[in-house]
Amino acid sequence: MARGKIRVGIVGGTGYTGVELLRLLARHPHCEIAAITSRQEAGPAGADLFPNLRGTTSLRFSEPAKAGLAECDLAFFATPNGVAMGEARELLAAGVRVIDIAADFRLKDVALWERWYGTKHVCPEIAAEAVYGLPEVNRERIRGARVVANPGCYPTAVQLGFLPLVEAGVIDLAHLIADAKSGVSGAGRRAEAHLLLAEASDNFKAYGVPGHRHHPEIVQGLEQAAGRPVSLVFVPHLAPMIRGIHATLYARLTGDADLQALYERRYAGETFVDVLPAGSHPETRSTRGANCCRIAVHRPNGGDIAVVLSVIDNLVKGASGQAVQNMNIMFGFPEAAGLEQLALLP
Amino acid sequence: MARGKIRVGIVGGTGYTGVELLRLLARHPHCEIAAITSRQEAGPAGADLFPNLRGTTSLRFSEPAKAGLAECDLAFFATPNGVAMGEARELLAAGVRVIDIAADFRLKDVALWERWYGTKHVCPEIAAEAVYGLPEVNRERIRGARVVANPGCYPTAVQLGFLPLVEAGVIDLAHLIADAKSGVSGAGRRAEAHLLLAEASDNFKAYGVPGHRHHPEIVQGLEQAAGRPVSLVFVPHLAPMIRGIHATLYARLTGDADLQALYERRYAGETFVDVLPAGSHPETRSTRGANCCRIAVHRPNGGDIAVVLSVIDNLVKGASGQAVQNMNIMFGFPEAAGLEQLALLP
Amino acid sequence: MARGKIRVGIVGGTGYTGVELLRLLARHPHCEIAAITSRQEAGPAGADLFPNLRGTTSLRFSEPAKAGLAECDLAFFATPNGVAMGEARELLAAGVRVIDIAADFRLKDVALWERWYGTKHVCPEIAAEAVYGLPEVNRERIRGARVVANPGCYPTAVQLGFLPLVEAGVIDLAHLIADAKSGVSGAGRRAEAHLLLAEASDNFKAYGVPGHRHHPEIVQGLEQAAGRPVSLVFVPHLAPMIRGIHATLYARLTGDADLQALYERRYAGETFVDVLPAGSHPETRSTRGANCCRIAVHRPNGGDIAVVLSVIDNLVKGASGQAVQNMNIMFGFPEAAGLEQLALLP
Amino acid sequence: MARGKIRVGIVGGTGYTGVELLRLLARHPHCEIAAITSRQEAGPAGADLFPNLRGTTSLRFSEPAKAGLAECDLAFFATPNGVAMGEARELLAAGVRVIDIAADFRLKDVALWERWYGTKHVCPEIAAEAVYGLPEVNRERIRGARVVANPGCYPTAVQLGFLPLVEAGVIDLAHLIADAKSGVSGAGRRAEAHLLLAEASDNFKAYGVPGHRHHPEIVQGLEQAAGRPVSLVFVPHLAPMIRGIHATLYARLTGDADLQALYERRYAGETFVDVLPAGSHPETRSTRGANCCRIAVHRPNGGDIAVVLSVIDNLVKGASGQAVQNMNIMFGFPEAAGLEQLALLP
Repeated sequence: MARGKIRVGIVGGTGYTGVELLRLLARHPHCEIAAITSRQEAGPAGADLFPNLRGTTSLRFSEPAKAGLAECDLAFFATPNGVAMGEARELLAAGVRVIDIAADFRLKDVALWERWYGTKHVCPEIAAEAVYGLPEVNRERIRGARVVANPGCYPTAVQLGFLPLVEAGVIDLAHLIADAKSGVSGAGRRAEAHLLLAEASDNFKAYGVPGHRHHPEIVQGLEQAAGRPVSLVFVPHLAPMIRGIHATLYARLTGDADLQALYERRYAGETFVDVLPAGSHPETRSTRGANCCRIAVHRPNGGDIAVVLSVIDNLVKGASGQAVQNMNIMFGFPEAAGLEQLALLP
Repeated sequence: MARGKIRVGIVGGTGYTGVELLRLLARHPHCEIAAITSRQEAGPAGADLFPNLRGTTSLRFSEPAKAGLAECDLAFFATPNGVAMGEARELLAAGVRVIDIAADFRLKDVALWERWYGTKHVCPEIAAEAVYGLPEVNRERIRGARVVANPGCYPTAVQLGFLPLVEAGVIDLAHLIADAKSGVSGAGRRAEAHLLLAEASDNFKAYGVPGHRHHPEIVQGLEQAAGRPVSLVFVPHLAPMIRGIHATLYARLTGDADLQALYERRYAGETFVDVLPAGSHPETRSTRGANCCRIAVHRPNGGDIAVVLSVIDNLVKGASGQAVQNMNIMFGFPEAAGLEQLALLP
Repeated sequence: MARGKIRVGIVGGTGYTGVELLRLLARHPHCEIAAITSRQEAGPAGADLFPNLRGTTSLRFSEPAKAGLAECDLAFFATPNGVAMGEARELLAAGVRVIDIAADFRLKDVALWERWYGTKHVCPEIAAEAVYGLPEVNRERIRGARVVANPGCYPTAVQLGFLPLVEAGVIDLAHLIADAKSGVSGAGRRAEAHLLLAEASDNFKAYGVPGHRHHPEIVQGLEQAAGRPVSLVFVPHLAPMIRGIHATLYARLTGDADLQALYERRYAGETFVDVLPAGSHPETRSTRGANCCRIAVHRPNGGDIAVVLSVIDNLVKGASGQAVQNMNIMFGFPEAAGLEQLALLP
Repeated sequence: MARGKIRVGIVGGTGYTGVELLRLLARHPHCEIAAITSRQEAGPAGADLFPNLRGTTSLRFSEPAKAGLAECDLAFFATPNGVAMGEARELLAAGVRVIDIAADFRLKDVALWERWYGTKHVCPEIAAEAVYGLPEVNRERIRGARVVANPGCYPTAVQLGFLPLVEAGVIDLAHLIADAKSGVSGAGRRAEAHLLLAEASDNFKAYGVPGHRHHPEIVQGLEQAAGRPVSLVFVPHLAPMIRGIHATLYARLTGDADLQALYERRYAGETFVDVLPAGSHPETRSTRGANCCRIAVHRPNGGDIAVVLSVIDNLVKGASGQAVQNMNIMFGFPEAAGLEQLALLP
C-alpha cells in the first residue's frame, strides 16, 4: 500500500458509472487506482474514451483476467447487471472487498431478483451477506461489510424522500406513489435509438409503467423501514437532460406531524442529505456532479397528502459518488473524502 | 367578407400564443387576419419579431385603438391575463365574437378568480356568459357562444386525462393527483432569469406546489363533470424543453372498469384526442405543433390505482390550436380546418 | 391515378428523411402514397414507428419486393447510400421516375464517388443521366428528368450561400471556407454512442476535418457554376440540437460588388430562398419544419472578406422538402404544393 | 492572515463568473473568502441565489461599501464592465491587488476601449499598468502585477489557438478568420428574451458579425505576439448549450511547418493547455467545469490553410478558472491549486 493509500480496482470502467468513479477517485486523497478492466475495450487508455480524463491517468483498460484485481483492497463493479455475481466469490476469497454499483446483490429475495433480472443468480450466499449501501440507513453495517450492494439511482432518491414519513409511521403505506423523472445518463452509455439526442431531446415520456426493476428494490427498503408491507406505484419518466433525478412523492397522512421538523431531524447529522427550508423546490442542477440529495416536503392546502420533492445526480449520489461514500465508510476514511466538490451550476 | 372568409383580429400578437395563432391562421382556408395589435410593439411587422412568418404576412402590429377590431367577425385575445376583460364588452357590443386565450373568463366563481389573479374582475357578467372552450365537453354550447374562454394548457391535459374516469364515477374524487410537466414556452415569452437556457436547461424542478392558478380551473371542470366536489393535488414541474405537457394522473379506483374500453369509448368521435393502445407511453413530441391530445391509461400490477398519461403541445391543443378549433365550431367550419398539420418529429 | 393524383412510393420509410416525406406528403394535394417499404421493419404501420403519423396513414411497411413500386409514377429513395443504385434501373424500365434522397447519383465523376463511398457504383449510366436536384440551379432540367439526385443537406446550404458570389465572379475561388454546423438529425436515426443525448447535448465539436463526403459534392456544384476549379475547406460541426444547419461561409473578394443587391437579385424569383435585410443574422429555428433557406451576407469592417450566413432545416430544404419541391417541378404541380407550412417557432 | 491563507473579496458575486469563483475558491487550499458584495442583492446568502453553494458558505452578500474589501489581499471583480475602473484605484491604494474578470483593463488603447464600451474610461493609468492575464503569454509579468486584466472568453480560446502559428511567423496575418461558437452562459445571467430556453434551444445563429467587443482584444494580443498588424474576421455564434466555447480558426500558411510539432512544443510546459494527437476533434464537454484549453490542429488535404480547433469552458479557463490561475501566480501558490477538478462528463 503506497503512501498509506488503499489500492482499488474498477471492473468495467467504460460506462458512465465507470468514468464517474475515475473522475472522483482521481482526486481522492486515500486511494490509488490500481486497475481498470473492460471486456470490450482492452487496450486503449481511459482518456481516449473519456477525454475529460486526459492528463490525469495513464491507466489502460486491461482484460479482466490480467488486471491484478486480486491484489487490490477493494474492487468496484461498474459493470452491467450479472457480471459482479460471477466474479465476486473469487475476489472475496482473495481478501478483496467488493462494491457492486450494479444490481446483483441488492435484493435479498433471490427468486424475486431472478424474476426481474431474467437470469439465474449464481451466488445467492453473497446476496445474502451483502449490505445494502444506503449509508443513511445502514452506516454501521457498511463499516464492516465485505460486500456492499450500491443502491440504484431511483431507489436512492425515492427511499431518502420517503424514509422520514415511513419511519415515523404517519402515512398510509398501502398507496404510496413515486413519480420519478430521470436524465438519460441513467440508461447508461447504451447506443439505443430512443436515447439519441434527436429522439429524446425536446421530448418527455413515461416508461415502464407496467413494471420497472427498481420497484422491488424500493419496496424492500421501505418495508424494512416500516416493518410492514408497503404498496407502491412507481412511474419513471425520461427527461431531456443528461444528469439528474427528480422524485415527486405522494403519501396520504394518517396522523398529524410537523413534516418540516420531521425531515430536518431525520437528516440532521447527514452530510449528503440537505433538507431545504419549508416552501422550497429543489432543482436537479443543484446536485450536478455533487454527492448530495436535496429534499423539500410540502402539504398542499393543508390537506392530507404529503408531497416530497427529492433530487440527486443519478451518477453521483445515485451511483458512483455513493459508492465512494461507501468505500470511505468501509475503510474508515472521513465520509466526505474525495466528495467535497460542489455542484456545477450553471 | 372577402372570398367567403371571416375577418379575424388578434389582440396581443407578440407572445407565443400570438405567433402560434399567426402560424395556424396563415394557412386557414376560411379566415383572413385583418388586424394584429400590440401595445409594446406597434410599428414592426410580425415577421420582424418572428422570422418564421417572413413572406407570409405583411401585417404590421397596430395600436389597439387603431386596429379596426370592431370590423372583425372574431377577436382572439392572445394577451396577458386581465386585458380581455377590459376590452371585450365594447367588442361584443359591436357584434364581434371573442375567444380569450388568457384566463379572464375561465372561472365562473368571480371571487375565486379575483383571489388567484390578484385583481378586480371588471366584467363579471361576461365571465358568467362565457363558454369554457373545451370542445370535448362543451361543443354544442361553443357553437352558439359570443365569448369563449379558451382553457389553460395544464387544465386541457389534466381534464382530458381524468374526464373518462370522473364521468364514469369509478374513482375516489377526494384524492386525485396530477403530476404535470411542462416545457418552458408555457411561461410565455417572458424574460425571467429562471427561464434562461443557462438556468432551465439540463435541469428539472417542481414549482408552485403550494398553489397554482390552474388548480381552481381544473377543479371547476372536474366538479362539473362529476356533479360533486373534487379534491386535487396538482404539482407542476418545469421540464428542459420548449414545448409539450406531460400530465401523469393518479386516481384510486372505487369500482371495477375496463379502463381501456372506457377511454376509447369516451373519445371515439373526437378528432383531436387519440387514445393509445393498452400498454403505451405517449411522448410529448408526438404532438409537437399538432392540435392533439394523446392518452394512455394503465393499472399497474392490477392494483387499485389508475395511472393516466396525457400529452399535448401546450401552445397548440393547450392554447392557440384549441382556439382555432373553437373558432371552427363557432363559425360552422369543419372542426379540423387549418389544423391538419402533423406533429414535427424528430 | 385516383382523383388526378400521382401515385408515389417511398423506399426505406423508417429513417428521418422517410418520416419527413410522410409528414409532407400526407397533406400534399396532388399525390397519394401508394407504398412504403422497409427491409428491417416489414409489417408494422408507419405510425407505430413514428407516432406523429397516428391517424393519418394506415399504410404498413412492406417488403420492397412486394410493394408494387412498379405501378407508381414516382419512387422516392429515403434509403442509406448504395440502395437506390441497385433498384433504379428496374424501376426506370417500368416507367417509374426516381428521386434519390441519398447520395448515389449526386457525383458525375463515378470514380470519385467510389472513392468517397467505398463501394463500386453499379449503374454509372444512371449517375450520368441523373439531374442534380437543386431547383435554384437546375429547374428546367429537373422538369424533364427521369432521375433526380436530391442534394445533401450541407451541400444545399453551402451552395445556395456561395452561388451568387461564384456566379458573379467576384471572389477568390482558390480559398473558399465553409464552416458548417448541423443538428444531430443530419446523421440519421442511427443508434451510435456519440449521438446520444447524454453525449451530444451540452456539447459542441467539429468532425470530419480531414475529409467529408459532402466536400466533393459541394465542389462539383460550385465548379459547374464557376466554370473553373474551386478549392474549398469544409469543416462540419455537430451542434446540440435536433434540426438545422447553419453554414458560415468566408470568401475573399477580388472585385467590387454590392453584395446585398447581388443576393437579392439572384434569388428574386425563388419561393424557397429568403435573402434577409442587410445586417441580419438568420436563425436555424426560423426554418424548423419549413422548406426554406434564409441567407444574410456581410462584409465585416468593409474589408475584403465576405461572410455569408445560410440556414436551412436539414430534413426539409436539406432533404425531404427539397425532394417534394423536385417532385412538384417534375410533374408540373405548383412548386410550393404541400410545402406551405410555416416554420415551428418557438 | 488566518492559517497562512490569503483573504480574498469578490465584488459582484451574483453573476455566473461570481458563482463560478465561489465554487472554485470554496475548495482552494490557500485562500479564504472574506467578502462577497452585490449592489442588487445585499442581504441574501450566496446559497439562496445559487443552491449548489448550500452548506459550503455562510457568507451573505454585502453592500460594497460595508464589505471590508480594503482588508483583503486580493479583490476579484466579477462585475459588469465599467465597475472595476471605478473602484480599483482606492483598493490599490489600500494595498489590495486586483483581478478584473470584466473588460475594464484589457485594452491598452484607451480610446479604442471607449469606442467599444461606449463610456469614458475613468482610470487610464491603471489600464496602462494592468497586466493582461493570459498566463501562457504573460506569466512572469502576472507574478508581480498589482492589477490583472483577466482575458475574455472568446479571446482566450482564439489567442491560445492562433498563438503558435503567429509566433512562428508561418501564416498570412492579413486574413485570419475565427469562427467561434459559445454556450449561452457567455452572455451572463441576463434576463433577455433571446437567451430564453424557448428561444435559444434547438437553434443556432451568428451574432455581432458587424462588430464584437472581443475583436480588438484578440487583435491586440495577436499583434503583440506578431510584432506586426493583424487583420481578423471574427464571427461569434450562439450555440444551444450552457457552457463551452469552440473556436474554429483558419489561417493561410505562408511557409512550411510541422504544425503538430509546433503546437506540442509551444504548450509543452503548460498545465492547462492540452494539445490533442494529430487528427483529433476536441469536444467542449471535455472541458466542462475544468480549467483547460484543448487544441487540435489540421491541414485539410495538405492544402495551404491551417485549421485549428480550440475549446474551453467559457466560465473556467474563459473566466473564473483563469482568474484563480492568475491569483495562484500572483501569490506564489502552485499554479494548479484549487484547479485540479476534472471536467464533468457526461
